[in-house]
Amino acid sequence: MAGSSFGTIFRLTTWGESHGKGVGVVVDGVPAGLSLSEEDIQVYLDRRKPGQNRFTTKRKESDTVQILSGTFEGKTTGTPISMVVWNEDQHSKDYSDIASYYRPGHADYTFDAKYGFRDYRGGGRSSGRETIARVAAGAIALKMLSELGITVSAYTRSIGDVEIQSFDAAEIANNALNMPDAEAAEKASGLLTKAMAEKNSVGGVVECVVHHMPAGVGDPVFEKLDANLAKALVSIGAVKGVEIGDGFSVCTATGLTNNDAFHVNADGSIVKLTNHAGGILGGISDGSDIVVRAGFKPTPSVAASQQTINKDGENIAIEIKGRHDPIVVARAVVVVECMTALVLADALLVGMSAKLDNVKKVWALDEK
Amino acid sequence: MAGSSFGTIFRLTTWGESHGKGVGVVVDGVPAGLSLSEEDIQVYLDRRKPGQNRFTTKRKESDTVQILSGTFEGKTTGTPISMVVWNEDQHSKDYSDIASYYRPGHADYTFDAKYGFRDYRGGGRSSGRETIARVAAGAIALKMLSELGITVSAYTRSIGDVEIQSFDAAEIANNALNMPDAEAAEKASGLLTKAMAEKNSVGGVVECVVHHMPAGVGDPVFEKLDANLAKALVSIGAVKGVEIGDGFSVCTATGLTNNDAFHVNADGSIVKLTNHAGGILGGISDGSDIVVRAGFKPTPSVAASQQTINKDGENIAIEIKGRHDPIVVARAVVVVECMTALVLADALLVGMSAKLDNVKKVWALDEK
Amino acid sequence: MAGSSFGTIFRLTTWGESHGKGVGVVVDGVPAGLSLSEEDIQVYLDRRKPGQNRFTTKRKESDTVQILSGTFEGKTTGTPISMVVWNEDQHSKDYSDIASYYRPGHADYTFDAKYGFRDYRGGGRSSGRETIARVAAGAIALKMLSELGITVSAYTRSIGDVEIQSFDAAEIANNALNMPDAEAAEKASGLLTKAMAEKNSVGGVVECVVHHMPAGVGDPVFEKLDANLAKALVSIGAVKGVEIGDGFSVCTATGLTNNDAFHVNADGSIVKLTNHAGGILGGISDGSDIVVRAGFKPTPSVAASQQTINKDGENIAIEIKGRHDPIVVARAVVVVECMTALVLADALLVGMSAKLDNVKKVWALDEK
Amino acid sequence: MAGSSFGTIFRLTTWGESHGKGVGVVVDGVPAGLSLSEEDIQVYLDRRKPGQNRFTTKRKESDTVQILSGTFEGKTTGTPISMVVWNEDQHSKDYSDIASYYRPGHADYTFDAKYGFRDYRGGGRSSGRETIARVAAGAIALKMLSELGITVSAYTRSIGDVEIQSFDAAEIANNALNMPDAEAAEKASGLLTKAMAEKNSVGGVVECVVHHMPAGVGDPVFEKLDANLAKALVSIGAVKGVEIGDGFSVCTATGLTNNDAFHVNADGSIVKLTNHAGGILGGISDGSDIVVRAGFKPTPSVAASQQTINKDGENIAIEIKGRHDPIVVARAVVVVECMTALVLADALLVGMSAKLDNVKKVWALDEK
Repeated sequence: MAGSSFGTIFRLTTWGESHGKGVGVVVDGVPAGLSLSEEDIQVYLDRRKPGQNRFTTKRKESDTVQILSGTFEGKTTGTPISMVVWNEDQHSKDYSDIASYYRPGHADYTFDAKYGFRDYRGGGRSSGRETIARVAAGAIALKMLSELGITVSAYTRSIGDVEIQSFDAAEIANNALNMPDAEAAEKASGLLTKAMAEKNSVGGVVECVVHHMPAGVGDPVFEKLDANLAKALVSIGAVKGVEIGDGFSVCTATGLTNNDAFHVNADGSIVKLTNHAGGILGGISDGSDIVVRAGFKPTPSVAASQQTINKDGENIAIEIKGRHDPIVVARAVVVVECMTALVLADALLVGMSAKLDNVKKVWALDEK
Repeated sequence: MAGSSFGTIFRLTTWGESHGKGVGVVVDGVPAGLSLSEEDIQVYLDRRKPGQNRFTTKRKESDTVQILSGTFEGKTTGTPISMVVWNEDQHSKDYSDIASYYRPGHADYTFDAKYGFRDYRGGGRSSGRETIARVAAGAIALKMLSELGITVSAYTRSIGDVEIQSFDAAEIANNALNMPDAEAAEKASGLLTKAMAEKNSVGGVVECVVHHMPAGVGDPVFEKLDANLAKALVSIGAVKGVEIGDGFSVCTATGLTNNDAFHVNADGSIVKLTNHAGGILGGISDGSDIVVRAGFKPTPSVAASQQTINKDGENIAIEIKGRHDPIVVARAVVVVECMTALVLADALLVGMSAKLDNVKKVWALDEK
Repeated sequence: MAGSSFGTIFRLTTWGESHGKGVGVVVDGVPAGLSLSEEDIQVYLDRRKPGQNRFTTKRKESDTVQILSGTFEGKTTGTPISMVVWNEDQHSKDYSDIASYYRPGHADYTFDAKYGFRDYRGGGRSSGRETIARVAAGAIALKMLSELGITVSAYTRSIGDVEIQSFDAAEIANNALNMPDAEAAEKASGLLTKAMAEKNSVGGVVECVVHHMPAGVGDPVFEKLDANLAKALVSIGAVKGVEIGDGFSVCTATGLTNNDAFHVNADGSIVKLTNHAGGILGGISDGSDIVVRAGFKPTPSVAASQQTINKDGENIAIEIKGRHDPIVVARAVVVVECMTALVLADALLVGMSAKLDNVKKVWALDEK
Repeated sequence: MAGSSFGTIFRLTTWGESHGKGVGVVVDGVPAGLSLSEEDIQVYLDRRKPGQNRFTTKRKESDTVQILSGTFEGKTTGTPISMVVWNEDQHSKDYSDIASYYRPGHADYTFDAKYGFRDYRGGGRSSGRETIARVAAGAIALKMLSELGITVSAYTRSIGDVEIQSFDAAEIANNALNMPDAEAAEKASGLLTKAMAEKNSVGGVVECVVHHMPAGVGDPVFEKLDANLAKALVSIGAVKGVEIGDGFSVCTATGLTNNDAFHVNADGSIVKLTNHAGGILGGISDGSDIVVRAGFKPTPSVAASQQTINKDGENIAIEIKGRHDPIVVARAVVVVECMTALVLADALLVGMSAKLDNVKKVWALDEK
């Protein structure tokens, strides 16, 4: 496996490079009968599209998705759904000199080490454009989840040292940084403007919350729901850390403060009085909100001068040209949302057979 | 998949419950010709064994491994290696009352939600004893890595708010907490003694460093080396966060401070002048040390009184009996080491075919 | 993957050699709530056990199965079911000379070519004893299928040139050759007696029929139900051909004679008026009986003298000693039944999510 | 998994329907550094293209392949290779009435049973056009095999009761039926002409031979090379039987006649004096030619009147319109060749890590 697939039953396979013909994905295992249009996908792609504000690359791409297979009369047929976004605005010339050297913080050196050579144009396969395929597939997962009443919502939690201090869901789409706190967004904008002026870049944290997740989803041991979420999030380029629920802060908590007490409400519903666990116990969803966070590094492509080496083995200084975001966090919000949805969708399908009663329900009673 | 397998080529499948007949693992895909004895496995199992000091459960288990298949005359044959550790000291009566309620911070509730019922004795499949199988398999991975000159070393980085201030590799095995800093270990011991007195527990962080990893291992996109490390570590019960290299601290760094400059030494060797990336770029090893961290929550089984619900849907107060560690971190060190080794061993085998030159080297030139 | 696992959700992993400590299997993904005892497994193992009549190897093994995990109070828990059969009667000395040469028709040469050396005792991993693990796992699959009203029945269709001429299900267990035709069994016995006298062996065909299979199971394209059945059957050592429905005889049929007409009965039930297709159309079950056949080669271990080579590269003549069946077909009947059941069980679980309606049925309505 | 992927490391994922926008495939895991052009693929697609002679459907498609990703400057980069063939000549109206009924011998009924509805245009996903994707991927596998000196060659062995009596490799491409025997091809043409006149169709057998396969490829137990070949071939629509080597004729052979004697030649090379086994022993290649056969049923779409049912549950008579081949065998020859190549390519890559020596060769010595 060259690692371009993800998921066991709800399974996507992506392809495409930054400066190739396009970027695409095949999603296999989507249940038949789900209403699906290109518009359902496009709304998510529009959220990650470049060229939307002054903090994103000036590359102009309409990033229009085409569904090539797997739907009929507006519904999924159960067969693979192939989608493509054609590349349009490829300034390959911008990248001509990076063929000869290794950019710090990029995968240039490791691609050469692994494959012997690389498609150096715009980062090739390790470009941020690869996430288009994740978002297109994730949009289908999100559509399926919504049919089950499950919602997934990600937002920027912090940029540099600016962290949100309040939470207003309606505000997330209101600012260029996808922060649920207008004041924090304002402060973070100042930080970014400064970084750009210094030909520098900054990092940040994306948080994702899942509402209305049924209990009992995910497997014990290796296919824990949180283990797969961790893999999904770290597989996004630039992510260097992942937390579930309280994350690393549990390391300084005690058992008594960290344990979430179960409680039966007057109406018989079961809740946890707190949610330090982030909705997952023993790798299986517990019915509370699932909460995950991903820590993104600063964009490695900075315009200031840097030391590195070239392919001839010489120490050189470089200045990276081309069009790059000073921060990946804001555009990564929808990617985090989509990767989370993909993990949940797959776990829901895989988990259908956990009980013999369910098997009987589907195969025996279904026929009557 | 009920999720009891891990890895693509170097692939383990584990089984067993805390109070069943034993715990075991089948490791498929181990290359033929590796020297392997039960002693090679036992040394790692001994490091995670309970009953070793006052901070670990008083359960007495010799945890002696038996190799049941896959070796011949002291070498692996390429066929599956089955290993078992029989359970000995099972105080099933200790757990009889937990059949009726859901322990906070445990998987009791979620197992019932998923499967309809559960083997409640000692946590069943979600018990820490499940990690025996990971360690037995990991020991083989470590043996294989050592043949390639790769070493993996984990240790306790912090317990509660006590973090190591110095690093002495020789000290790791010298103290009960596996800390490379004797002074920190002393302070942490005090913290644990206090927690036990308060019928409470604490969390901490395990760090793992890999030396002499060749560059070019791991796949881009979904099977990134760090993505699989993240999955592997979060799949260990009690882990709530994972970091690679500088981890979450990159979120407040800038591109210029976080990028690692490549440098050619006088002898022609290529290095990075810093290693914020933790040895992985674009999901592929870069030849620097690989550095990962896992954040563990406090042991959820605490002896103090807690609120919860029983299976009849009543709110109750419980006091958990049985034998439990006030901290899982120290015993988890070897588990982190083994899970890291399993990811690396698999990535090395999967990655052999990345270049056509390698394919020719193995299949064509090999015959001459 | 060293190839010791089979299935996507209902997934088994086998281990063990002919003359190692035992043979075992871990079955992951069995739905929780299935009644299961060792006796359920043992009845199938007893059907393949050696030493039962004059046509089977004289090796004496009780082949008693132990369930080591995955059940609790008589039911499967959804966690991996580990089973073992310990080896007892190992005459390793019988095999001492085969260490030095390559038996014709055996895997000795190919194991050496692949792994560099081999566990030569009794065929090691390529011994027929490996099928114990398949049968133990298959017994669980058969139990699950029976809960859904599906039955699987295999029998010997032919031995050498003796083919059954009539079909009496009750007769199958009545004769040593598992033929549903007493007269044919008598004739085949004569054939075998003659072969044994000539230190020779014979081949034959096993047929397997599945009753009450629901329509709609199996996937199009690569995971066709018949494709997986073909793989399952050819994966049994000694099988050199597989047929579904009319098999190779369709090659000389015409579209008009081979097509099965659909028909609606007076009660509204849908049937096919013929079943040339063997119950599978486009890789998906059609509700008719599934019919498959596997062609077995004669036992390669014959006592008569044969030409071969030794490890020193010399041409030699050998006479194989040890205890071998003059035919594998009769004992393979239960193996074919089990492999068929494993494919069906997995396809039923994988196929649960094919329709969004089913997903909703399990995850949404289930909660109410 | 909806079953649209095949292979473990050299892994393809196909998509597309007969009357959708196109048919495509993503091939992941192809080693970097393989020379590859669209022309390399096109030559194989041209061999399966419709409209080439009077025995193939009159549908006119240029079936021109486009490579969308995964190559750079004429070589594979190790990243996924996406290929597409756009549909051009879609007479969707021809199929409008088949929306309402179930064609005998087709997957119409089973698709509805599985998914609840179907894309009925031209068979949708179960159309023969799906094999375009297999051939495009197979062409890459064949290119890789040729770099290792391995050749794969398939041909028509029989059509109806006309079987080849001689073998002339040069003749295969000379006649419309891909038979290596001009006389047999002439006779078979007569048979087909007669079938067409009778609005009927016929079946046949394709044979495939692999030359220069190294010994030691394939895994024991479930991932036997022949088991995967069987799956690959039966996964081709219309295949109802598969044979390896002597196939079903071994059932009437004896051990002494069926065993292939190993022999050392004067030059030290090891051969088998016969090849009844078809080049595979114990699931692993033995260095002899690999020989497999697939039995194809007659095209189910015949123009003569047939009985069936419609979706309202009524018994009706139908006459299938549209453009259909009276035989699938000739066009399936290249598909068999490609599926065989895909199995071998994957087994070669998976098998690289079977020996520790190979692992060392790739990862350790490679660096020096």
